[in-house]
Order: sequence, then C-alpha cells, then structure tokens
Amino acid sequence: MRALVFDKTLSFDPRRPDPPPAAGDSLLKIRQAGICSTDLEITHGYMQFRGILGHEFVADVVSSPNRDLVGQRVVGEINIVCGRCDLCLSGLSSHCRARSVLGIANHDGVFAEFARLPAANLHLLPSTVDDDQAVFVEPLAAAFQVVKQLGNRSAVSEGRRWVTVLGDGRLGFLVAQVLRNAGFPVRVVGKHPEKLSICEKWSIRSRLLADIDPRHDQDIVVDCTGSPAGFELAMQMVRPRGLIVLKSTMYAGKQLNLAPLVVDEISVIGSRCGPFREAIAALSQKQVDVASLISRRMRLEQGVEAMNWAAMPQVLKVILTMD
Amino acid sequence: MRALVFDKTLSFDPRRPDPPPAAGDSLLKIRQAGICSTDLEITHGYMQFRGILGHEFVADVVSSPNRDLVGQRVVGEINIVCGRCDLCLSGLSSHCRARSVLGIANHDGVFAEFARLPAANLHLLPSTVDDDQAVFVEPLAAAFQVVKQLGNRSAVSEGRRWVTVLGDGRLGFLVAQVLRNAGFPVRVVGKHPEKLSICEKWSIRSRLLADIDPRHDQDIVVDCTGSPAGFELAMQMVRPRGLIVLKSTMYAGKQLNLAPLVVDEISVIGSRCGPFREAIAALSQKQVDVASLISRRMRLEQGVEAMNWAAMPQVLKVILTMD
Repeated sequence: MRALVFDKTLSFDPRRPDPPPAAGDSLLKIRQAGICSTDLEITHGYMQFRGILGHEFVADVVSSPNRDLVGQRVVGEINIVCGRCDLCLSGLSSHCRARSVLGIANHDGVFAEFARLPAANLHLLPSTVDDDQAVFVEPLAAAFQVVKQLGNRSAVSEGRRWVTVLGDGRLGFLVAQVLRNAGFPVRVVGKHPEKLSICEKWSIRSRLLADIDPRHDQDIVVDCTGSPAGFELAMQMVRPRGLIVLKSTMYAGKQLNLAPLVVDEISVIGSRCGPFREAIAALSQKQVDVASLISRRMRLEQGVEAMNWAAMPQVLKVILTMD
Repeated sequence: MRALVFDKTLSFDPRRPDPPPAAGDSLLKIRQAGICSTDLEITHGYMQFRGILGHEFVADVVSSPNRDLVGQRVVGEINIVCGRCDLCLSGLSSHCRARSVLGIANHDGVFAEFARLPAANLHLLPSTVDDDQAVFVEPLAAAFQVVKQLGNRSAVSEGRRWVTVLGDGRLGFLVAQVLRNAGFPVRVVGKHPEKLSICEKWSIRSRLLADIDPRHDQDIVVDCTGSPAGFELAMQMVRPRGLIVLKSTMYAGKQLNLAPLVVDEISVIGSRCGPFREAIAALSQKQVDVASLISRRMRLEQGVEAMNWAAMPQVLKVILTMD
C-alpha cells in the first residue's frame, strides 16, 4: 500500500506492506487524515517513533471481529490499551502502562491506505458529520478534555473568570470554541493577525501578542503554544492562585524557571486526549466550526510537501486524502 | 544595631542604623531567628534582595500603635501588604501586588537586634510555645499550606493515596509531619541516611533515593528538594493524573522538559506561605516535633559562618541568637 513513513527521515513509500492481521483488530481503509503538530514534532525526534505517521482520520471498516462495524464509517481513539494494568482497571485506560499509540508509539498510523485498530477504539459516525469534520474529532476531543478538567477546579467556581487561550494554531482555535460553548469568557492571544481574524466569525475576542502587557490577571490560561516561551508567558499572564492548562506535548528541553509557580501559587494541569463522544456530538450539532480551519487538501503522495505546509505558521489544518 | 547584611556579599555589620520609625509598624526586639534555604538562595541572587536577611523569628514588641502588643512575645507574617489592591480585596493578601516581604523583598529582615513589621502581621505566642519552637512557626505554616491546598483536590478524594515528600531538608520534615497528622500515608525520600533516620522517631516511613525506582505510582509528590532535578524526579514518581506540590522557590533556570506533565496529565500546584494560627496551635499541642531539627545555635556575630553551616547538606535548622 501507499504510506507516509518516518524513519529518521520522512518519505512517501508507494509499496509499504499492508497492516498485518492481528486478533481483535479491525482493518480500516482510510478516507482522509489530518496533520497535527505532534506529527511534526515526531519528525524532530519526539517519542523516538519510527513508522507510518498520523492519528487523525476518518475510515471505512474493511474487516472486524465486531461484524456490526464492517462497512461503517468510523473515527478511532488513538490509545491502544491492555485493559489489565492498574491504570486500565482504575478507569485511566488512556494512561495504560502498556499502551501503544496510533502513529505516535509502537503502532503504525493513518497516513496510509490502510491501518488497524482494536474494534473497541472505533466510533461510528452519524451522517450529519462529514469527512472533513470527522478528521477533527480527535483534536476536538482533546479540546473537550480541557473543559472536563476545568469542571472540577475551584479556580472555575470563584465568580469572575478571565480565560485566555494562548496560541492561534489548530488546537488553540478548537479549545477556544469549546470553552466559549461551555460558557467561559474566552479570548485568544496569538502572533498572527491573519489567523486571529477567524475569531471574529465565532464572536470570540482575540488580541495580538504584541499588543498585550502580561499583568498576572487571568484566572485561567490554556497554553496551546507548544513552546517554553509560551509557558513562561502563561506564568506572567495568570493571576496568583490561577490555573494554567498545559495542552501541547512538544516541550523540548529548554531553560525554564519554575519559581513563579511557587511565588504566585499557580496550578498547572497537563491535558492530553479527550472524549470522542462529546466531540462527535458537537460536530453533528454544528456547535464547533472546523471547516474554517482547513487551509489545504493534498494527496497522500504529496505527504512530504504537506508536512512542510503544515509546519508553516500561517497554515492551519492540512488534510491528506488517500484516493 | 548589630545585623547580618547582604549587599552583593554577606557580612556582619556591628553598627547598622536602627529601623526607622514607620506609621502603623511595631518595633520588634528579636530574640532569635532561623536560617531558611530562601536566605541562602538570596545570597546567590534570588529576588535581587539587598539588606538585612532573615524572616523566621521570635521577638518582643518594643513599641506598637496597638498598645496591647507592647511587651508581648510574638512571631510575624512576612508579607507586608497594601490592603487595597484587587488581590488584597479578594482575600489573597499574601499575593498583594504592592507587597514587600520581610528579609526577602524591599523590607529589612530579622537577622538583627531590631526589626519592624505592621501590627497586623504579628501573632501573640502562648507560653506553651517556647522560643525554639517559635522560630519554626513561619516554615511550619508553609507546611500547613500544603494540607490546605490538598484539601480541595480531587486527587485526594480518590481512595487509596500514596504520598511522597521528596527532600530530607528542613521543610520536607515539617511537611511530612503535618501530612502525617492530617492522615496522609506519607513517606520521605531523600539522599542523606543520617537525616532520614530522624523519621523513625516520628513513625514516618523513609527511603533513600538511591534505593527507589521511580514507577509513576505516587498519588501525590510534595517536592521540597529545591532543584530542577528534584522536579524531574517528581514527574517520574507521580502517577498519571497525580499531583505534584511544588514547595521550594529556588528553581534556577535549568533545562526542563515539561512534556511528561501533558502526557501523564499531571497537576502541579505551587505552594508558598501558610496559616500561622494552625502552626502555633500545632506547636502548642506538641503535634509537631521541631526540637529534633535544630542542628546548631550560633550568635548573630557568627552569622556568616552560620549561613555556611546552614548550607551544608547534613545540617538542618541553624538558629541565630541575638543577645
């Protein structure tokens, strides 16, 4: 099959072997896939992953131990878990100690004609969610995780709340929409006027980073920048006893002074994968606009070029089509 | 008066001017004071402080706008606050935007014969708390702050809890005792067998760092190490969705990779000053042993040497006496 493979370098492989059959897995024929910043980070060494990239997708089920799934259009959760370790048994299966992760750790991804996943990972799509929307289910679920984690936080129940989403990228715009829908008075702070202008159509406030003066006055800052500089800025923006939600995994080792966390008694909460059901429902009910985030559509054969496109600061989502 | 002064270098000054009178302030004659790691950090440049060091003390009130305080034996809170800013008005006065901090920021400290503090900062001591115990009120209050912050945390209410205090220093041993008293099944992990052996008399479990293998299995890790290496270890010890309480302010800029916070969805909460009332009550009721933490007692004139002593890894609290 055709596939986009990272093995020290990134290349398109026109003759990659099809996924081997595995007990319990469903075979998926990928319709299209989305390029995420994590894919880009992997090509810089993150997770030491080698293999087929990609974890945001919509596919048709070719074969499955669950007969009801065959022929269905699906999306899929990315953590492949053991179901037996202490974390799985305590309800934290997305943190399974023996997990592999689609296109990220020990499991080939979806930038290919075919992929495989356990049937339990798959979610049927209603006809009200089209293929473009479906590619956003995984990152949108990750955005919903922020709301889920904020739900139990005392920082949220203290009356007045100022919430900043830091970062005008793919994930930041999803998080901003989800927080707005959940009733948070959110604004987006970013570096790119042309991207920030999208916020207008969503009636979400936005500010250019160059125009703000961090004043330790935000109740919650969601850091979607993926850079240590972003985290340092978040520490300057959040109020004493405020909360930083750390959303992006691409923190390279960099000089970081954490003393502000202690002096200002700041809370930080790391946030990763989230609930697919809520993401699918929100897309089905048109509560979140993802169409505006699609910058370009390219064929799998153009995968190397597509990854370069996705790395450009002015570009949002690049979609890879398989046919 | 005599004083221990930091102004690029540390020196004993036998003829430092007495504190100037200030409206609202009480004049204090210091009985004795404790050396804290923050004092040591200041001599390495932390907070860019210049002046008389020291913020852990017991004193007699010489004069005060509050007549009832005159002649009384007191301890004092270290944040000198405006009472008018948004943070003061919202109950977060320890985070006052205009604050100065005793011996730490814009306010001379207590390694001297005399010091001054607003009357509102002072707490009367019962006769059941002796001068040695009194010197521990401030750091013990900081230890109580950990319990206070854990009180509202869902991480705590999830049944089984494994709690590690990381660091066998002055603060770590106070935090461990307070957590044990609050019902947490705590153990201390540190580098120094001779210091860890103190835990036996408190019936608190302890382990040598060299003997443990971090396994992402602790529900809560309280990092009292004051080093980036300690924080990295805390990220390896805490379970997915667990909590790190960051207790020490002495984080110099160092390479730090925060990706584990996101991947494991770890929460971090910074923790600084705490409730004096609870610390005084605990000492009065002999619920916390501080006498065992006193390594040495030295005179103010020996202050430079005393600071060198306090910096040694095998030394716990060094007390400076003023007479």
